[in-house]
Amino acid sequence: MSDKMKRIVLASRPDGAPKPENFRLEEADIPTPGEGEVLVRVHYMSLDPYMRGRMDDAKSYAQPVPIGGVMEGGSVGEVIQSNDPSFKPGDFAMGGFGWATHGVAPAKALRKVDPAQAPITTSLGVLGMPGLTGWHGLTEYGRPKKGETLVVAAATGPVGSMVGQIARLHGLRVVGIAGGEEKCKLAKDKFGFDDCLDHRAYETASDLRRALKDACPDGIDIYFENVGGKVLEAVLPMMNNHGRIPVCGMIAWYNAGGLGANAGDGGLTAPALWRNILVKFLSVNGFIISNHWDRLPEFVKEVAPKIADGTIKYEEDVTEGLENAPQAFIDLLTGGNHGKALVKVF
Amino acid sequence: MSDKMKRIVLASRPDGAPKPENFRLEEADIPTPGEGEVLVRVHYMSLDPYMRGRMDDAKSYAQPVPIGGVMEGGSVGEVIQSNDPSFKPGDFAMGGFGWATHGVAPAKALRKVDPAQAPITTSLGVLGMPGLTGWHGLTEYGRPKKGETLVVAAATGPVGSMVGQIARLHGLRVVGIAGGEEKCKLAKDKFGFDDCLDHRAYETASDLRRALKDACPDGIDIYFENVGGKVLEAVLPMMNNHGRIPVCGMIAWYNAGGLGANAGDGGLTAPALWRNILVKFLSVNGFIISNHWDRLPEFVKEVAPKIADGTIKYEEDVTEGLENAPQAFIDLLTGGNHGKALVKVF
Repeated sequence: MSDKMKRIVLASRPDGAPKPENFRLEEADIPTPGEGEVLVRVHYMSLDPYMRGRMDDAKSYAQPVPIGGVMEGGSVGEVIQSNDPSFKPGDFAMGGFGWATHGVAPAKALRKVDPAQAPITTSLGVLGMPGLTGWHGLTEYGRPKKGETLVVAAATGPVGSMVGQIARLHGLRVVGIAGGEEKCKLAKDKFGFDDCLDHRAYETASDLRRALKDACPDGIDIYFENVGGKVLEAVLPMMNNHGRIPVCGMIAWYNAGGLGANAGDGGLTAPALWRNILVKFLSVNGFIISNHWDRLPEFVKEVAPKIADGTIKYEEDVTEGLENAPQAFIDLLTGGNHGKALVKVF
Repeated sequence: MSDKMKRIVLASRPDGAPKPENFRLEEADIPTPGEGEVLVRVHYMSLDPYMRGRMDDAKSYAQPVPIGGVMEGGSVGEVIQSNDPSFKPGDFAMGGFGWATHGVAPAKALRKVDPAQAPITTSLGVLGMPGLTGWHGLTEYGRPKKGETLVVAAATGPVGSMVGQIARLHGLRVVGIAGGEEKCKLAKDKFGFDDCLDHRAYETASDLRRALKDACPDGIDIYFENVGGKVLEAVLPMMNNHGRIPVCGMIAWYNAGGLGANAGDGGLTAPALWRNILVKFLSVNGFIISNHWDRLPEFVKEVAPKIADGTIKYEEDVTEGLENAPQAFIDLLTGGNHGKALVKVF
């Protein structure tokens, strides 16, 4: 085994959309685990939209990645050295090892992954952070009721596809929004959405809204928000009274450079947004799933059997090689992926 | 008794702030109550910010007042004729009689008011719609916890003063915002606010925010929203994680002409608003109290004794004469009133 590892650091902060030169591939010594710590060789690394926020120095959930710091992220891999009785070499572990081939973490910060239960990649997707995000956000803040209508964007992504499938199981009409006809077909054929609109086919929020009116003849009761921008602007006037909007992301506005930027949106103003909340008695809840990991066992207990028996489906988009992670991430932010974005590191 | 009554109708829709010429005083025949209906001579009429919304034809909670239609509103008065066993002449009743000296309504749409329990005016204020709005919004959506900090604007108004007093009883630090030093003194001396800021002393949202930072050293956990505009912009970045924002009004934006207008606010954008909700895990709930009248008995049971024993105080601002209602309403929208705005009609 080589004593060297590879990792990708933040070379510079992006101005708008990240570019390849904002990242730098480095070689470093493989760290040595201390007392109670575990060394993991990463097999798969997750790429997620929230990582864009870490590249800015604006106040957000978490500290930004410092210039020269390793890009943050979740990974799953094999334990190759353990100084804690809860893990032994050969075990699989999921943790926040960042964009790197190897990582050290305290054993108690890791989740053990059983490769016999499901492919290890699912710990980063359908049975991991994105799946839990969709399930928790929908059930906790969306409060789905049979016969209602739900809209979710990035419908074939790991959050959106979970939201849509769980909502269908609750008896809702489920309408997805996705980028491109191929994704819309995937949403309907694989994930069982009642309908799916290709947002690229509609230039303005008004155009998209007209199409949504056909797809949602009874209005919208739950809008699961993960994109912001044009979709939010299209959806907002269609919300029914007492509608719910769980907010877990706003990817369309991530490249806007933080607070105060208008992101070139088509005219949705703060007063209009506020007015809709007021006059339709909407319930809007922002959340980040890291505050709700306590629900993971309940989630896995409910959803893992449904994955095993094929009731709940998932899609993965695997890029080979750590060195290709930056481009895969750039593509993710513009919707270039199909399903949960992963990088096969080893 | 004359057979004629007076009423004020909407002469034209305002462009921005209402002007006297948007209203017209009319004479009409006193209507005759039908089966199950009651005729009331109005003693006091309520003026409330929500009435501004009724003057536009934008979609809101309710249908707009038609041109030539009587301005809507709640009133309390004496029953002078009753075709229903639940009311007899001499009883006092509260109902939606609009801006008028007399009104007919179905008995079941009226609330009986006991002048021995409290002055009849309180049925329009501290024990009526505005009081219930503050109490319900705070307890249901604000979820106050001892030791937290609450901010409410229009602090001496009938909603804000109820919110502040109830929050104080829950053990919160309560900071008001009001227009003018005199109102701030009233908020502190009469209503017991820990602090109160005169928003007129701060030109920009940033200036107001700096003052709020001194007044709220631990940040803001609950922002009871009834104004929007500069105050919202100042408050938003100061919200603590998991903060709550009940939204019952946005008076600063009422004159903005409905959806899409930016109301000349100082730069709060939809993405910035949305981002704050997301990254601070805020819970934002729009509501209108007419959906929650079922909570009135619980409210009155809790609050009426506290009014009787002086624990909860209230302030009324009475204008004499129906013909002066338009100017009093115009003043209300610019903060010219002190306490619950009422018009003494008889």
